[in-house]
Amino acid sequence: MSAQPQLSHDPVFPLHLGGKIEVRSTVALQDRADLSLAYTPGVARVCAVIQADPPAVYDYTVKSHMVAVVTDGTAVLGLGDIGPAAALPVMEGKALLFKEFGGVDAFPLCLDTTDVDEIVETVVRVAPVFGGINLEDISAPRCFEIEKRLQARLDIPVFHDDQHGTAIVVLAALLNASRLTGRPLPTLRAVVAGAGAAGLAVTRTLLTAGIGDIAVVDSRGVIHADRDDINLAKRDVAVRSNRLGRRGSLRDALRGAHVLIGVSGPDLLDGADIATMAADPIVFALANPVPEVDPVAALAAGASVVATGRSDLPNQINNVLAFPGIFRGALDVRAPVINGAMKRAAAHAIAAAVGAELAPDYIVPTPFDRSVAPAVAAAVAAAARATGVARR
Amino acid sequence: MSAQPQLSHDPVFPLHLGGKIEVRSTVALQDRADLSLAYTPGVARVCAVIQADPPAVYDYTVKSHMVAVVTDGTAVLGLGDIGPAAALPVMEGKALLFKEFGGVDAFPLCLDTTDVDEIVETVVRVAPVFGGINLEDISAPRCFEIEKRLQARLDIPVFHDDQHGTAIVVLAALLNASRLTGRPLPTLRAVVAGAGAAGLAVTRTLLTAGIGDIAVVDSRGVIHADRDDINLAKRDVAVRSNRLGRRGSLRDALRGAHVLIGVSGPDLLDGADIATMAADPIVFALANPVPEVDPVAALAAGASVVATGRSDLPNQINNVLAFPGIFRGALDVRAPVINGAMKRAAAHAIAAAVGAELAPDYIVPTPFDRSVAPAVAAAVAAAARATGVARR
Repeated sequence: MSAQPQLSHDPVFPLHLGGKIEVRSTVALQDRADLSLAYTPGVARVCAVIQADPPAVYDYTVKSHMVAVVTDGTAVLGLGDIGPAAALPVMEGKALLFKEFGGVDAFPLCLDTTDVDEIVETVVRVAPVFGGINLEDISAPRCFEIEKRLQARLDIPVFHDDQHGTAIVVLAALLNASRLTGRPLPTLRAVVAGAGAAGLAVTRTLLTAGIGDIAVVDSRGVIHADRDDINLAKRDVAVRSNRLGRRGSLRDALRGAHVLIGVSGPDLLDGADIATMAADPIVFALANPVPEVDPVAALAAGASVVATGRSDLPNQINNVLAFPGIFRGALDVRAPVINGAMKRAAAHAIAAAVGAELAPDYIVPTPFDRSVAPAVAAAVAAAARATGVARR
Repeated sequence: MSAQPQLSHDPVFPLHLGGKIEVRSTVALQDRADLSLAYTPGVARVCAVIQADPPAVYDYTVKSHMVAVVTDGTAVLGLGDIGPAAALPVMEGKALLFKEFGGVDAFPLCLDTTDVDEIVETVVRVAPVFGGINLEDISAPRCFEIEKRLQARLDIPVFHDDQHGTAIVVLAALLNASRLTGRPLPTLRAVVAGAGAAGLAVTRTLLTAGIGDIAVVDSRGVIHADRDDINLAKRDVAVRSNRLGRRGSLRDALRGAHVLIGVSGPDLLDGADIATMAADPIVFALANPVPEVDPVAALAAGASVVATGRSDLPNQINNVLAFPGIFRGALDVRAPVINGAMKRAAAHAIAAAVGAELAPDYIVPTPFDRSVAPAVAAAVAAAARATGVARR
């Protein structure tokens, strides 16, 4: 390997030389006897058993603990449509988080196509090896259709983390912020800034969880059913949200709201905007690395709780709190889907992990809290059993 | 995991519980600082570099050392068309051999389609993550077209191991048998029993290496250009082999031949058949676990050298002598193909690894000779450089 010389001052490049994951044997292979068990002729007896009894593939192969991290590289971090090869470092990173926090093996699949039909067909064809599919960094609105069609075709969970992972951790954080400030979810009126995959999923999840009202705002203003410039995914949310019938800009929507959830872009708002919200508002400004509103300015303008996506600030909304435990729990019971009950159970488990230390600057656990993923896994598995989707 | 009780007496099943491979991190992930390098925000800088300079994907991701082991499960070991899920234990085994002997990471992809177009499209779409494609246990004649079309579409090596791996180890063994018995390759007349993927690849390779003549025999007899019941792959070989114009059965072809290479099925021949061959014949009976002719009977009938596919007999023709070193060498120089010169170099390196101990019961190294893969890798890399296909 030879790093490009001009990059050698940045520790991120030497760390990435040769990538971040490897495929290793979990069995001994020291002599002829080992080889005759792990490979020919012994392996043929395992193949024959799986052929005769297909569910045995979960017993005797990696399928029971292997997740595909699938992307087409169209919506990678803040970088956008950078293609499958440039997306690979992120997917490798995701794979190592799966292993580190959930004990789940994950393999990156970066697809050289952005066509919805082709992505669906490709994932269906590679599915036999995997116990679950984590969709990652696929741009909206294609991500919605891809997830829906894949889940309809496959008997393993399909989970678009940018939607559901974010929504689950936001719900967890909001449950704790609501508890901390003594305002139950049904009393809260929220504004979601951003109507991409994360914004729409957060909205759906909070509505299902019983929040009072949500106005979703895209680059052209509040989305509502009368707008003819919105895609089907936005329209579906438009007819279910905005019960108060708001119109206008982000600033219009924000006036008097209790909660701001930014999943949009940097520096949309300032302290003066936060000051127009209801008293002691809850502000989640999740754009990364530059939040929608400066956290210090938001606090100065009266925010009671501020969360961001940044690792160097309190209350980091980080999907790693959710996906490793969610897949671990789903795989443990061989659930064919990750349903709404399982997602909500994950959010409650994340919120509960904060425990008695709950405070304005501690509404979600840190990403390195090793107790979170096992708690999430147990809650998800229990929810799968309770909803009848557990297969073991 | 719960093994089926009736299988618990066979050690192959407990060994396979949960599969045989795992995906692991090769970087530290202990604290926030590690996370900010291996994942967000640091990873974005690596993505940006790859987007700007596509070949950098080889420097900063697993692509430089990751091979896909691709099958559709149609021709698995002696089991035949058992489907993708039942084929997975074999592909996992292959992956661990890649790692153990070649230091190459490999991941199994068992495809839920047997359609040639769909297999080609699927592999092309998943290719960004991989530095090479090892095709495995795909039935003939589809395997020929799939390999050819994939290699034409991709700038990474595509290698159908059942063809080329077998052919390379057979050539290595024959080079040593020829040397041992003092009969140069051009003086030898061979019979190849079996016209599947392995039989045709062995024939092409031995012809290119300069063997005197070969008669290839399928289930209906010697293949020749006048037969109208053969597929295009067999026809292509028919017009290049059988210069002596043989017709008839396997037994007809065998009469007076110097070499028998069986890549067919069990118990086709007996000692009396071997006795009809030229004096001191060379017999490779590679059907596994039951060879085409009993090795003891072949020796008793006058064979000078006998090789089989069995691990419990001398002279095991095992592809593991070839593929780990071949991919290691090709990956080391980022060759976009594994060309004929690279394959022949591999065969010569395997043959040379036997060294001064060359004897009738030691014409190929044992599969556990750790010196073989590095020697093969070096020879393959050198051949890639010599033929102008090395990219580093």
